[in-house]
Amino acid sequence: MIAEERLYKYAKLLVGTGCALKKGQPVLISAPVEIAPFVRLAAKAAWELGAGDVTVQWSDPEVDRLRYVSGDAALFDTTPAWEVTLLETAAEKGAAVLRLGGGMFGMEGVDPKRMTAKMRAGRRDCPKFNAGLGKGSTTRCGAGVPTAAWAKKVFPDLPEAEAIDQLWEAILKVARADGPDPAQAWADHAASFQRRIGLLTARQFDTVHYTAANGTDLTVGLLPNHRWHGGGIDNEDGVYYFPNVPTEEIFTSPDRRRTRGVVHASLPLSYQGEMIRDFWLKFEEGKVVDFGAAAGEEKLRSIIEADDSSCYLGEAALVPQSSPISQLGLLFYSTLYDENAACHLALGRCYPFCLEGGNQMSEEELKAHHLNISAVHCDFMIGTADMAVTGILPDGTEVPIFKDGDWTGEFV
Amino acid sequence: MIAEERLYKYAKLLVGTGCALKKGQPVLISAPVEIAPFVRLAAKAAWELGAGDVTVQWSDPEVDRLRYVSGDAALFDTTPAWEVTLLETAAEKGAAVLRLGGGMFGMEGVDPKRMTAKMRAGRRDCPKFNAGLGKGSTTRCGAGVPTAAWAKKVFPDLPEAEAIDQLWEAILKVARADGPDPAQAWADHAASFQRRIGLLTARQFDTVHYTAANGTDLTVGLLPNHRWHGGGIDNEDGVYYFPNVPTEEIFTSPDRRRTRGVVHASLPLSYQGEMIRDFWLKFEEGKVVDFGAAAGEEKLRSIIEADDSSCYLGEAALVPQSSPISQLGLLFYSTLYDENAACHLALGRCYPFCLEGGNQMSEEELKAHHLNISAVHCDFMIGTADMAVTGILPDGTEVPIFKDGDWTGEFV
Repeated sequence: MIAEERLYKYAKLLVGTGCALKKGQPVLISAPVEIAPFVRLAAKAAWELGAGDVTVQWSDPEVDRLRYVSGDAALFDTTPAWEVTLLETAAEKGAAVLRLGGGMFGMEGVDPKRMTAKMRAGRRDCPKFNAGLGKGSTTRCGAGVPTAAWAKKVFPDLPEAEAIDQLWEAILKVARADGPDPAQAWADHAASFQRRIGLLTARQFDTVHYTAANGTDLTVGLLPNHRWHGGGIDNEDGVYYFPNVPTEEIFTSPDRRRTRGVVHASLPLSYQGEMIRDFWLKFEEGKVVDFGAAAGEEKLRSIIEADDSSCYLGEAALVPQSSPISQLGLLFYSTLYDENAACHLALGRCYPFCLEGGNQMSEEELKAHHLNISAVHCDFMIGTADMAVTGILPDGTEVPIFKDGDWTGEFV
Repeated sequence: MIAEERLYKYAKLLVGTGCALKKGQPVLISAPVEIAPFVRLAAKAAWELGAGDVTVQWSDPEVDRLRYVSGDAALFDTTPAWEVTLLETAAEKGAAVLRLGGGMFGMEGVDPKRMTAKMRAGRRDCPKFNAGLGKGSTTRCGAGVPTAAWAKKVFPDLPEAEAIDQLWEAILKVARADGPDPAQAWADHAASFQRRIGLLTARQFDTVHYTAANGTDLTVGLLPNHRWHGGGIDNEDGVYYFPNVPTEEIFTSPDRRRTRGVVHASLPLSYQGEMIRDFWLKFEEGKVVDFGAAAGEEKLRSIIEADDSSCYLGEAALVPQSSPISQLGLLFYSTLYDENAACHLALGRCYPFCLEGGNQMSEEELKAHHLNISAVHCDFMIGTADMAVTGILPDGTEVPIFKDGDWTGEFV
């Protein structure tokens, strides 16, 4: 058992630093019922830090699974009215959003089309909420809390209680939540991001070129006036918050028309409860034109074909092999963690704020600027210990960014 | 550990017989997160019995308590918008409502005014949902599922896991859920109710007179065209369902103007997490004009003074000492169970269907017919082993109903 005092420190970090809660601001916590003990600590932390109200949106994977396998298909084409009200009201009131949990397990046998339909409906039916998340105007934080299924996935050989404790130890460590002053640790972490972001954005690379011995040879085109981000982010009121705890990545959103070449995944992808292994994607003019997987190929297809734009990239992110999560050498089976262990890409939705002025643009304007708009945003890992990443300037000059899987040159 | 098979049988009884679920009908389950394992069984049963959809309204007493003690008082004057949407949509769609749980514990230190304000707001803000429950047009079932706090209250000397198992045993027994065919057991149970209800309603007593050696000497006036109810009830579509599992009571709603005398509680009352003990009420012209309690007197006052009408009676119910729950001799600290162990009264809201045509009346019309309308409906036990209940006809004829705490004469 992890001491409650350590967990409460983590809860305060997530609410105070992750969500950057302001006095009087409402908080919406979404969490599976299984982690109720930690949710109570998070609610307590929120009230202690001055929350105006605390609402919990509970969920349960088994109740969800039963609905997916037993309900009519039409159920997943619309978002339940109460959920629309909950999320849209939260957006209207400027609530901070704290998403807690540990990946989605136990969804084997569920038709992926239903999950995709539900996700698409959610995006359509809750425009204010999704706009707030997409543009970064909603202060929010996603963070891991062990569930039994997740812990057993990460530590299959340990008894359940021990697996949960071990996963907690890993989570608290990579969240920088265990030291004497977690808030200060995160301020230091943020400063190191700022330097590299500044350098990368100032370079205004035309393309970024990835190569690795596994066959990856991919060129990703960037847009004029693109911006790199990482660490925390400012919302419209200048509140600096951390959308993810932990976070180690520096990322931008590419020109959706200009990705070409082949990329091999370097880690399995856990998506909607299923594992996709040893997969590759081939791009032409930004679009996936071919793909393959040793396992989970149909699930991979469901992502690529989820909508018209889920076959284009929405994100390209750099993570060095020296990141604490990478060093831990633990596969978390959770994007939140695993994406911070290796360079990655995402199929689907862009981050509008990765384009200068993008937050002020409508979806139509973003499309016109060649950013990708989709209901999907699915990260997958491509980073390897031998990966090289090179930035190419409009004049053809090559600037090394990564060598042997880590920062090089001016970016060290 | 209780075998899952037994629990699933109970779940099916609650959905199939309790809620009388129809094919395609949506189900709304409300439950604390702690009992998620049973909620999953109930959801499974609902889908198996043909539910059109299953929604769970989760809650957590500790999250609620933190809000009560930390939030601004104004938070409790309105119902959160998502909750209004959830309940009103359920009413519009004709959802069956299954309320699971085990009383409210751990609310010590919470200002009862806030709880009352929240209850009052809920009644005002969700008119369709409350009308459906009040008139009985919504098929619904409230039933017990052990929580740790509840089990330890009932069996304070047992270890937690054992207390929960013992409470399950008691619940399954009094719910008639453990036999070979629970649905048939409930059909038989219903038939025995029908006979007594028919006799009592046919008599059209003018008043009912309660006496016991503890000092109770109370006369409750009934209305012309009153009806007695008990067991299940028909909704507007003629669907017979059981609002409570278990249920042993036969009840009506009195003339709010004509209760007089003194009544002593025969069991402690657990209300909003606090115990009210050894209390009495004195009535004149229907209204509580004096009261006292050995413990919890302020909580009792908060009920009586909750609104203008919570000092009048809304229900008078007959339960024999021979009822299985009474025979079990276990104080459940839960109205659902304890009210089925003894004759009881309720302060506050009437049941409109206890007056001929009452379901078709507006609140104003119900008031004009001298039924009581209030945001409160609070049951308290008055039955004793020596209780006598006599029905008095308009011409003064006395008809014995109960003698020594049990049915007598034509009602045996």
